[in-house]
Amino acid sequence: MSRSDAVRAMIADRRDLHAHAEAGWCEVRTASLVARRLAGLGFAVRVGREVLAADRPGLPSHEELKAAYRRALAHGADPGFAELVRDGFTGVVATLATGRPGPTVALRFDIDANYGHESADPGHTAQRGGYRSRTDGVHHSCGHDAHTAIGLGVAREIAAASAAGEPAGEVRLVFQPAEEGLRGGPAMVAAGVVDGVDVLLGCHIGVQARATGEVIAGYRRILASHKFDAHFTGRNAHAGISPHEGRNAVQAAAIAVQNLLAISRHGDGETRVNVGTVEGGETRNSVPARAVLRGEVRADDDVILGYLRDRVGDVVRGAAAVAGVAARIETAGGAAGADSTPELAAVVARVAARVDGVTVVRDAADFKGSDDMSSFMNAVQAAGGQAVYFGLGSRLGDVHHAPFFDVDDDALVIGRDVFLGCLRELGVLG
Amino acid sequence: MSRSDAVRAMIADRRDLHAHAEAGWCEVRTASLVARRLAGLGFAVRVGREVLAADRPGLPSHEELKAAYRRALAHGADPGFAELVRDGFTGVVATLATGRPGPTVALRFDIDANYGHESADPGHTAQRGGYRSRTDGVHHSCGHDAHTAIGLGVAREIAAASAAGEPAGEVRLVFQPAEEGLRGGPAMVAAGVVDGVDVLLGCHIGVQARATGEVIAGYRRILASHKFDAHFTGRNAHAGISPHEGRNAVQAAAIAVQNLLAISRHGDGETRVNVGTVEGGETRNSVPARAVLRGEVRADDDVILGYLRDRVGDVVRGAAAVAGVAARIETAGGAAGADSTPELAAVVARVAARVDGVTVVRDAADFKGSDDMSSFMNAVQAAGGQAVYFGLGSRLGDVHHAPFFDVDDDALVIGRDVFLGCLRELGVLG
Amino acid sequence: MSRSDAVRAMIADRRDLHAHAEAGWCEVRTASLVARRLAGLGFAVRVGREVLAADRPGLPSHEELKAAYRRALAHGADPGFAELVRDGFTGVVATLATGRPGPTVALRFDIDANYGHESADPGHTAQRGGYRSRTDGVHHSCGHDAHTAIGLGVAREIAAASAAGEPAGEVRLVFQPAEEGLRGGPAMVAAGVVDGVDVLLGCHIGVQARATGEVIAGYRRILASHKFDAHFTGRNAHAGISPHEGRNAVQAAAIAVQNLLAISRHGDGETRVNVGTVEGGETRNSVPARAVLRGEVRADDDVILGYLRDRVGDVVRGAAAVAGVAARIETAGGAAGADSTPELAAVVARVAARVDGVTVVRDAADFKGSDDMSSFMNAVQAAGGQAVYFGLGSRLGDVHHAPFFDVDDDALVIGRDVFLGCLRELGVLG
Amino acid sequence: MSRSDAVRAMIADRRDLHAHAEAGWCEVRTASLVARRLAGLGFAVRVGREVLAADRPGLPSHEELKAAYRRALAHGADPGFAELVRDGFTGVVATLATGRPGPTVALRFDIDANYGHESADPGHTAQRGGYRSRTDGVHHSCGHDAHTAIGLGVAREIAAASAAGEPAGEVRLVFQPAEEGLRGGPAMVAAGVVDGVDVLLGCHIGVQARATGEVIAGYRRILASHKFDAHFTGRNAHAGISPHEGRNAVQAAAIAVQNLLAISRHGDGETRVNVGTVEGGETRNSVPARAVLRGEVRADDDVILGYLRDRVGDVVRGAAAVAGVAARIETAGGAAGADSTPELAAVVARVAARVDGVTVVRDAADFKGSDDMSSFMNAVQAAGGQAVYFGLGSRLGDVHHAPFFDVDDDALVIGRDVFLGCLRELGVLG
Repeated sequence: MSRSDAVRAMIADRRDLHAHAEAGWCEVRTASLVARRLAGLGFAVRVGREVLAADRPGLPSHEELKAAYRRALAHGADPGFAELVRDGFTGVVATLATGRPGPTVALRFDIDANYGHESADPGHTAQRGGYRSRTDGVHHSCGHDAHTAIGLGVAREIAAASAAGEPAGEVRLVFQPAEEGLRGGPAMVAAGVVDGVDVLLGCHIGVQARATGEVIAGYRRILASHKFDAHFTGRNAHAGISPHEGRNAVQAAAIAVQNLLAISRHGDGETRVNVGTVEGGETRNSVPARAVLRGEVRADDDVILGYLRDRVGDVVRGAAAVAGVAARIETAGGAAGADSTPELAAVVARVAARVDGVTVVRDAADFKGSDDMSSFMNAVQAAGGQAVYFGLGSRLGDVHHAPFFDVDDDALVIGRDVFLGCLRELGVLG
Repeated sequence: MSRSDAVRAMIADRRDLHAHAEAGWCEVRTASLVARRLAGLGFAVRVGREVLAADRPGLPSHEELKAAYRRALAHGADPGFAELVRDGFTGVVATLATGRPGPTVALRFDIDANYGHESADPGHTAQRGGYRSRTDGVHHSCGHDAHTAIGLGVAREIAAASAAGEPAGEVRLVFQPAEEGLRGGPAMVAAGVVDGVDVLLGCHIGVQARATGEVIAGYRRILASHKFDAHFTGRNAHAGISPHEGRNAVQAAAIAVQNLLAISRHGDGETRVNVGTVEGGETRNSVPARAVLRGEVRADDDVILGYLRDRVGDVVRGAAAVAGVAARIETAGGAAGADSTPELAAVVARVAARVDGVTVVRDAADFKGSDDMSSFMNAVQAAGGQAVYFGLGSRLGDVHHAPFFDVDDDALVIGRDVFLGCLRELGVLG
Repeated sequence: MSRSDAVRAMIADRRDLHAHAEAGWCEVRTASLVARRLAGLGFAVRVGREVLAADRPGLPSHEELKAAYRRALAHGADPGFAELVRDGFTGVVATLATGRPGPTVALRFDIDANYGHESADPGHTAQRGGYRSRTDGVHHSCGHDAHTAIGLGVAREIAAASAAGEPAGEVRLVFQPAEEGLRGGPAMVAAGVVDGVDVLLGCHIGVQARATGEVIAGYRRILASHKFDAHFTGRNAHAGISPHEGRNAVQAAAIAVQNLLAISRHGDGETRVNVGTVEGGETRNSVPARAVLRGEVRADDDVILGYLRDRVGDVVRGAAAVAGVAARIETAGGAAGADSTPELAAVVARVAARVDGVTVVRDAADFKGSDDMSSFMNAVQAAGGQAVYFGLGSRLGDVHHAPFFDVDDDALVIGRDVFLGCLRELGVLG
Repeated sequence: MSRSDAVRAMIADRRDLHAHAEAGWCEVRTASLVARRLAGLGFAVRVGREVLAADRPGLPSHEELKAAYRRALAHGADPGFAELVRDGFTGVVATLATGRPGPTVALRFDIDANYGHESADPGHTAQRGGYRSRTDGVHHSCGHDAHTAIGLGVAREIAAASAAGEPAGEVRLVFQPAEEGLRGGPAMVAAGVVDGVDVLLGCHIGVQARATGEVIAGYRRILASHKFDAHFTGRNAHAGISPHEGRNAVQAAAIAVQNLLAISRHGDGETRVNVGTVEGGETRNSVPARAVLRGEVRADDDVILGYLRDRVGDVVRGAAAVAGVAARIETAGGAAGADSTPELAAVVARVAARVDGVTVVRDAADFKGSDDMSSFMNAVQAAGGQAVYFGLGSRLGDVHHAPFFDVDDDALVIGRDVFLGCLRELGVLG
């Protein structure tokens, strides 16, 4: 396969994934096709329960998982692998062990899409290009389609190279589900997928790097995060006849929204607060008895995250007390913060500077978001290994998680080539 | 049919309706079975588009209407009538015109159930009695099942009496869908179902009268009401990386909830405000771009209602401005206020005092709620007729619109007999 | 003194009082001049500690009381009586006991002005008439200047009549301080000023009667009320360097304001909620550690008032919990509800119909506000007596408590004459 | 004077200043005594209008300034200098020009205290030591008393050294009033007090350095800040009788407080929001017509500050719209951000490492607050000079701006010696 064919294939992969966006734990089509492709390239492939612990926070309902499975099959999933990854076991790990002495290098790619409306505006690149998501309300608005396509592109080159050359050590490709919500990472780490890894590499597209050709050699300050659901339970009453007998759960939720957003900044580092969704009430003319918020906080470190969690508790319980309703807070995901290993970041910087199309290499940048990559990085670093999360610059159609989000296909090749360059630099690729 | 058989039939009807609760515009089973029964009793029956104008506010989505139709058939609807009332045309009007000179008397019964959870607690009468709603999230928590069963009981006695006696004038039984939300009344009035009516009677169970045996001879101050939906549209953004690029629709909704509830009381009369439901956001880690509230205001009169509507506009638009999002307010229903005609209320009082089981007759009481009955009353009174909405006392399992709500079966017979007594007093029943 | 001279005197009194407005417990000039006048007319006059119990809620600070005393002297107070009423003992009771058998009739007038800015607009009647308040921030915006002037006018006629005619029984004129905030009434009742009273009369100008010539023969549903202060105590911190170490009392107050206003209406009767003042914080760049609200709730009856008080507690404590601060609620005044005695109201109606200038007499009307008159009415009625609070119609310059508020001088004569007519009807005036 | 005498004098100065705390623009005693001392030491002293432009934002009222002047005289101010610095001209600049070629080095010290309660707890060091503020509600809770005492200590040594040694260039000591609120700096810069300055040095005690012995060689990221007042104007009405005629300014303020605090974090840098004070309403039983907030926002850079100012506008105007009131925003102070010049910071680091008592020297740290020092730094740097704001570690009794705040006297000597060391290093001190 010529270089330009390989590029075309990677772009086609990305657009196909984009068009068939699947949200966290529902990536049956994505995982099954990734698994089939990697198996076809000669990798030893493990999927489903082999690579994911049973404890997976934020799992959708049984009905949603069933619907996702059916949709995946209707959209061309591989039936065999689909059976293995259904019911929220949508992870894939592919290994190429050379048998020759050398480091074990893991590359991690996340594969899930986001909930959110994708623009149908003719000005939206994915609409114009005919690869807008075919699933209403699910949109690859964080670029994981690009990450997955890069992973497949890297796999293709590794396979070709290992046929031709003299690789050493072991390469492990980790395709992670449910990154959004910080849910899949801990479950894969718990299943041991980065055990024995000496070097871990990953990338994110477009974060703090919105020009194609830019590379951030390693993010630091990936934010620690805590995800929570707050449930309020009050009491219904007829809104005209006996409103005073009601206890208003939607009022409690409204107080909570306002005051969660108003949790004070912290003097020692960055914080973030979001209430992503709210849902409450039964019917127009009844004092509403139920409401639920889905929220998250993020912080520069675990001490600040602890402060935020404490304040979330104060706000939710206090808001319930104001409205005279009951409150319950449930943890729905989370991750510690992480930093790239400086020595490994230096390797990435050196490699990236030589990659075709790269115009700017920045040593480091604050990530400013959270990412499940933290879980893998912390596991590898705690065991004495090195980890880097590098930034892959790309022109974007919109900010992340927004309706016009799309990436620049040219960035895919750069991403692939940085990974390949690192593998060569580390000696695992001939 | 003996008196006790008739009572048993009415109770059985009520429990069957309770168990197969259907929400507004979805009452396919209810309407079809009512129509079949009345036709069988010899009434001239009109249904669907004959008795409802096309303009029906707050109609559910096409999908919901289809699902309601399927569910109704599965639960034993009459297939023929179901076909006529499907797609939100769930009204029935049955007429018995004697041909002999006399007044035209209309009796109006509402038939819809409420959205809301019905308790499954063994202490809940409907649970213990085996007639708890079989449809999740739909509950006859306002007693319209009782109203409908009373209407059927009245119809049975009219049929028997007209066979035996010497009725005069015309009796018209109006079974109204979608009372909740004040949606069905205007559509039936627009279709002319109370044209030519001299006297209009209706009742509500348990409002301001929570003891079985109590009758309120006529409600006054049925509140004027305005139902509205407020839509907020902001802009998504990644909650960690670029929260400042978002415009938060859920924040706007939260401000609106708090400040709608805080709209000032009015010095000249009663007001009510409720936000029954709120729904917003797309996903946990994105600044939410959409939110919608479903609310209502009520007032003693139209001037005060106008004040409330103005303030709703201020609050919704102001809340949007605070959060930097766009807002849109849509009217979703409404009714003017109404008062019972005193002369007719005096007839009800006289009749009720003689009814078996009645222990207390009160001349009048404030209704304190709104009711689609207003639309019928205003139409009849404006044309020179008389109208009364009387209160039927009943022990209740809970306040209206609350999970343990259920009525006392003994009240059904009293309700039926007050209607029949009035028909006799008015000379339309022999 | 001719009738027109008497009228001119009453108008002059009212304008003088208006120009020298004194807020609750500070009415040193007003009380001293009232006492001097009544003593001069031959009444037995008691003032200060003789007519007020020591327990007087909402007393201003020692400094404010001292300043009020000085200002009163500067503005022409009677030095002797001023000494007796200073330090918040600003009540006056004047008695004319005939020694002849007959009922004891008390007439009650409130004398305090309001805090609030009086308009200096040339269109404002008091500004144009040259009697705008000379004390910044204190304004007779509730018409107590008119009440006091009427009381003086009544006293003058009683004195004249008793000289000429054959009065019987006893007339007691009660001039009450600190009506605003419902503070002076309980303290006068506790001092026994209505002990032994058979009939109690009082009036309010302009409430539910905004046309001169209108009389409401007796208010009913004077609202029960509870006045409270809510104190929040948090913790200061530098707003830039360590905001997370602060606990924000102003935030708690803001939550409380919003949710006090949002306390649900009650299905069984009217409610009112107000937060009249808020004050919090120390300096711009410090997380604020202190805040205080001054609020009130009102209700149709004591059950509903109890509901409101409970909810105030929930809101204040919950708001504090949200912000992580401490809260303390203090009672600052209050009164039960009251209703005029119907038989006595009928007397007023009969009398008023004959009074010159009266164009409309309404039997009764809801008061819609609270008033310290309740305390006197409840005391008299509980002891078997009768009480009426009648409405004196007047064209107004603005709504009560607003900057352009002023009354129509023509109403003063009508008010005086209704009182005099009642005294004659009751046989205590010849 | 021996070293230990000099140390004792500096400590005594600090405690005297602490006990006689004066808030911004009111530092009459402080400025007059500083001026007298410096004049006595042989410096050329300029004060008042010579060193402050007329435009001084956030000036207290005429009454407050007068009271401050009287209090200062009563507390021992120098009468002559007091006359020159009264009415808000409380700045002092002292110069020692050697006439020998060399750089012009300015040292800047801020002198104002904070509004806020100082603890009277026996555990509070200033209470125990007998130097708690004698002025209620004014407290040196930001350590400017220490800065001023250090300035005086430096002056004494300069005077001694210049008598003995061979200084070159010029030393200029700038004592700045009204640092709190960022008010005095621009007015001094506008008066030209740092014109011609080559090197500017300043320090802050205890910021990011809470151990005595720690020195931060130069703060970076001193936050840009904008101070604002938001005024809300509604309409009074009687809270019981006609609440609907009111337009509630306190409600608007409450909405604004909540949503100012909830202004979203910014993805590109730190932000701060504070509402330091709120005041609203006239009286308990009237819908409040007036309210005012005093707030501030801070940001890492001017772009982010612009975002915050835009959002403040949205929130204030939107909150007013919700409540139906008018809003007005006024600017009350502000400063751009600033960073220490790295080369000069390196000098400080080198010097500090040699200072007695210094245990840790950190190269740099984020300031995390705003400071009027920015105005001086920006002016000097813009003119081609160098500026440093260094951090002087100190054990603290509490966080800044909090009731137990007090500093460690040992830090004073270290601060003085770092300044002196720098002056020597720069060649202006022999």
